[in-house]
Amino acid sequence: MERNVFLSMVDIATALAAVKDALDRDGLMRRETTPAHLAAGRVTAAPVFARCSSPTFHSAAMDGYAVQSAATFAAREGNPVQLRKGQECTVVNTGNSLPEGMDAVLMIERVLAEDETSITIETPVFPWQHVRRIGEDIVATELLIPQNQTLTAYDVGALLSAGIWELVVWEQVRLRVIPTGDEVLDFRKRPEPAPGQVIESNSQVLAALARSWGCTAATVEVVPDDPELLAAALEQGLESDAHVVIIGAGSSAGTKDFTRGVIERFGKILVHGVAVMPGKPSILAVARGKLVVGAPGYPVSAVVCFEELVAPIASWLERKIFSPRQTVPVVLARKIPSKPGMKELVRLAVGRVGGCYVATPLERGAGMITSLTRAQAILEIPAQTEGLEQGIEVRAGLLVPEPAIDRTLIVIGSHDNTLDLLANALMGLDEPIRLASSHVGSMGGLSALKSGATLVAGAHIFDPDSDDYNFPFIARHLPETPVEVVNLAIRHQGLIVQKGNPRAITGVQDLARPGLRFINRQRAAGTRILLDYHLKQAGIAPEQVAGYDKEEFTHMAVAVNVLTGAADCGLGIFAAAKALDLDFIPLARERYDLLIAKSALGKNVDPKIEALLTIVRSEEFQENIRALGGYETTLTGRVMAPGMGLG
Amino acid sequence: MERNVFLSMVDIATALAAVKDALDRDGLMRRETTPAHLAAGRVTAAPVFARCSSPTFHSAAMDGYAVQSAATFAAREGNPVQLRKGQECTVVNTGNSLPEGMDAVLMIERVLAEDETSITIETPVFPWQHVRRIGEDIVATELLIPQNQTLTAYDVGALLSAGIWELVVWEQVRLRVIPTGDEVLDFRKRPEPAPGQVIESNSQVLAALARSWGCTAATVEVVPDDPELLAAALEQGLESDAHVVIIGAGSSAGTKDFTRGVIERFGKILVHGVAVMPGKPSILAVARGKLVVGAPGYPVSAVVCFEELVAPIASWLERKIFSPRQTVPVVLARKIPSKPGMKELVRLAVGRVGGCYVATPLERGAGMITSLTRAQAILEIPAQTEGLEQGIEVRAGLLVPEPAIDRTLIVIGSHDNTLDLLANALMGLDEPIRLASSHVGSMGGLSALKSGATLVAGAHIFDPDSDDYNFPFIARHLPETPVEVVNLAIRHQGLIVQKGNPRAITGVQDLARPGLRFINRQRAAGTRILLDYHLKQAGIAPEQVAGYDKEEFTHMAVAVNVLTGAADCGLGIFAAAKALDLDFIPLARERYDLLIAKSALGKNVDPKIEALLTIVRSEEFQENIRALGGYETTLTGRVMAPGMGLG
Repeated sequence: MERNVFLSMVDIATALAAVKDALDRDGLMRRETTPAHLAAGRVTAAPVFARCSSPTFHSAAMDGYAVQSAATFAAREGNPVQLRKGQECTVVNTGNSLPEGMDAVLMIERVLAEDETSITIETPVFPWQHVRRIGEDIVATELLIPQNQTLTAYDVGALLSAGIWELVVWEQVRLRVIPTGDEVLDFRKRPEPAPGQVIESNSQVLAALARSWGCTAATVEVVPDDPELLAAALEQGLESDAHVVIIGAGSSAGTKDFTRGVIERFGKILVHGVAVMPGKPSILAVARGKLVVGAPGYPVSAVVCFEELVAPIASWLERKIFSPRQTVPVVLARKIPSKPGMKELVRLAVGRVGGCYVATPLERGAGMITSLTRAQAILEIPAQTEGLEQGIEVRAGLLVPEPAIDRTLIVIGSHDNTLDLLANALMGLDEPIRLASSHVGSMGGLSALKSGATLVAGAHIFDPDSDDYNFPFIARHLPETPVEVVNLAIRHQGLIVQKGNPRAITGVQDLARPGLRFINRQRAAGTRILLDYHLKQAGIAPEQVAGYDKEEFTHMAVAVNVLTGAADCGLGIFAAAKALDLDFIPLARERYDLLIAKSALGKNVDPKIEALLTIVRSEEFQENIRALGGYETTLTGRVMAPGMGLG
Repeated sequence: MERNVFLSMVDIATALAAVKDALDRDGLMRRETTPAHLAAGRVTAAPVFARCSSPTFHSAAMDGYAVQSAATFAAREGNPVQLRKGQECTVVNTGNSLPEGMDAVLMIERVLAEDETSITIETPVFPWQHVRRIGEDIVATELLIPQNQTLTAYDVGALLSAGIWELVVWEQVRLRVIPTGDEVLDFRKRPEPAPGQVIESNSQVLAALARSWGCTAATVEVVPDDPELLAAALEQGLESDAHVVIIGAGSSAGTKDFTRGVIERFGKILVHGVAVMPGKPSILAVARGKLVVGAPGYPVSAVVCFEELVAPIASWLERKIFSPRQTVPVVLARKIPSKPGMKELVRLAVGRVGGCYVATPLERGAGMITSLTRAQAILEIPAQTEGLEQGIEVRAGLLVPEPAIDRTLIVIGSHDNTLDLLANALMGLDEPIRLASSHVGSMGGLSALKSGATLVAGAHIFDPDSDDYNFPFIARHLPETPVEVVNLAIRHQGLIVQKGNPRAITGVQDLARPGLRFINRQRAAGTRILLDYHLKQAGIAPEQVAGYDKEEFTHMAVAVNVLTGAADCGLGIFAAAKALDLDFIPLARERYDLLIAKSALGKNVDPKIEALLTIVRSEEFQENIRALGGYETTLTGRVMAPGMGLG
């Protein structure tokens, strides 16, 4: 079994320097002519000199009368002066050429009286007052815009005003993305992925990113894991008009990773292995004067390779100043461990809690596309750092405009489908609010409230001793964090089984049956606690349940296990069973509450939380909950008190 | 003469609220379907639920072996365990479906030995290690993206991975811009403007801005100042597919300002007059359910109307979060007076001087297109403020990416065409530097050095008493600001006269000749001081020179006066005469120096100034200077000392 060996890793700056050194930019990038009115965003490839002046002649800067200023000097309050029309004054509108013999403009508001032949004024006018003089703005033949400047929309105005109809600019960088892999499916064929298959999307993400930088991007069909086919696709890319050819996936050290070997047939590998996580197995090479990139296959790694390596090179090729992201200070809600020796990029969910931004690291798996879509910011942990402590302030790069963070409400805790309804309803407000929810179980939500990582947590923890929900745990774990408990819904939990219930499961007592495979929820999940209670009631030990140690993190994931036959049953909510057309054996009703920090209520109420409560208490929202099935809304929106149980 | 009357002015927030109140957004903006892979930048018009899970099945997260984790538990250093291929382990690559019976993945690096039938390991593997589990990233049927969310390139990945091929989004806002005015010329006809005419460019600036926000923009032909023609154009706009119709110019109170009257035929004026300078004469109206905007005619006013009023409404129509500009702290190099009662927007040239950003207000005329193109930032002076003092720190909104400011070098002082050469050469560097030069005359440059507004000033002030340049003035005005003086060039000053010298001017003694019209430079300009010296030498009093009190601010502006016959002659440099093909009567050679603050030299050298000096001292640059004609480079790049005169 042949596997590739990584070249020694280099840091990002070294990798970029190697590329800039190896590429002949002047040979690769050509000049072209573009119409001036469409030139915004382009980069000048030669200095631009004004052809016309602006204004072309002295012109009136106000509506009123062009005057001979000398004739007005005696005018003052109580000492009116008359100006003869056609001789000492002439009516002008803004922009009119100053008539011969006039050297200033009197504002119309200064005319006290007027008849057929004259006007009367009591204010003197100084020479050249309210006159825009020849070339005041632009002087013909002077430098208007130097070479290598990125043109703005404003520059379009300067170009046209100066009589420039077209100009020489640098080509836009053209990228060509070649997705690869036997297991990846072309989305254009609208595939239904079988086990082991994935829908190819990286090429489209990279193309969309490239377009957002002002590059053009083409994507080609997926190439199977075959060195000859890959070589043919690369050859085609190198012969195309692309400046940069990107091969997606296959850049690592697996048995099917042919990227490096194929690139070596055409050119020289500059870098294989960059000291950044994710994104490490990136390849940078030069072939036939073009940049060839081997991008990692995992979505997050591919994005890092693209944003940290390809973006700065594309800027350099287009002679644009590369702009790193705007950074803001954030307080870390959790400790973030990090491997020394590698720069790590960690995506963060960020919300405003009181006066500062609080950041919770999102799941760091390189395969988690949703860590890209759910992040508001990104944190760089330098190579020499071993990790960052909870509570410290660091600067994070914004992935969304700063005002969007102020419109984000973080909710951490147990997952429930009614949160999806809530998230969608919040985005329907006149001032939309984005709900950023992290699903870490009910107890995780309590921890997040305690550490100040969130102001709102979702929880449904049953306490068998008191026959109550949430309050006993709040008393134990949040002694110093006053919270208000508002019910979101009463929901039905039960056993999710395959359609038609082929294993004839009737209740929790069946879980100990030999050969039956259960799928569990993660430790600390409210559903797990409920299961343990019912197992205990039925006199069943966890060891008797096959699959008790197989954990999933959401109701839907449990249901998917049942749907696909990976398990025969699992405990979950009705909504999850219904969504996948599975059967459901009701076991219990339970209260799903929102725990809200009191610091964000009352007279210092957070307007986002106020909006959330208004929605929760609306009849429309409660109807939507009931339409899901498996929910009751008798308590929805009501403030709970200890001992209320199910009302 | 009929003139319009402004409605009472309202502030921007009130104006925007009136529009949002009057427009029926749901009626105006439609939903449409877009392919998912092209959806970046669009806004969802309905919630999107995942169709497929990701991963679809448990899959290997690493290259290596899928294993039965239970078979590995005994393995540790010194206690190797053998796993039988096909039974306890199977080779997998990243992304492969986990084979039946396996529940974890062992990294390839952990395999100590391998033969045909087994592998040997010394590390235990825990259940589900290096496995991406079903739905870990995306769970089918769950909410993927709520309504009204602006999609990113990352979201494209999530959509495709979840099996979403197309989705419902809100239409992009379509704008239609109608330029108006008898005096404006259509740039498409490549016109040569006559006196009183201007090339229409506002519509193209507005269209380019709109495109940068993700809107589409159409522009139509210029409509003359005729109410019936304007009404026809507006009617056509209202019947087109545009959501917003913008009428350029004609929104003020001049005799030809028909915009308001014409709009009133079709709909209702909501706002006429906004308390912002520039931009005051803006009109906002609703007609046939669409927004109609009357934009002021001056370029800066039009941009303010567009950015402050149209942009937030366009965001609101598209249901995007409106993002104001990022702000940075800047120190004001000059006092900025402001009218109370009006919010004022002042554009700033910003450069880094030492540890902070220093901002110099640019010329505030609403007609100055170059104040748009030359600004790095914009300052909002609130309505209740009378002005801002020199030296205070304020926050200004960035008009360029922050790194571009660090690449900007401010030069304030006298203008010379060699500065244009320098600006262009600096942009040709590997790390381009943008020269932002303000032309305020030599003495203005000294003031700017003194106040810390700049580190570099251009000056050519002759002192008749010492027969030296610049140093006597430095000694007098900059006693506490050590500067190094580096010569840029020796240049020829002379009388610029019309081609063929029809007035037969031979020297300064002719300036007193009756009927001859002179054009002067502004007070404090080095050229003006030179003139005064030569007049004195010739025994001529300023009063004897017709036009002595007519001032221009640049050499080229003086030359344009001569070219157009506004004056018979003026004092200026050879380059200006040559550029406009005028004749030149040499009068004197003079030294044009760069005065550089010593704080930015030596061991704390500013790398931008270092780069500037390297260019000035290069043979290539000096050749380019000589090619202009009228310059000598015998001193160029050399450090000057008092008393050196012309070397």
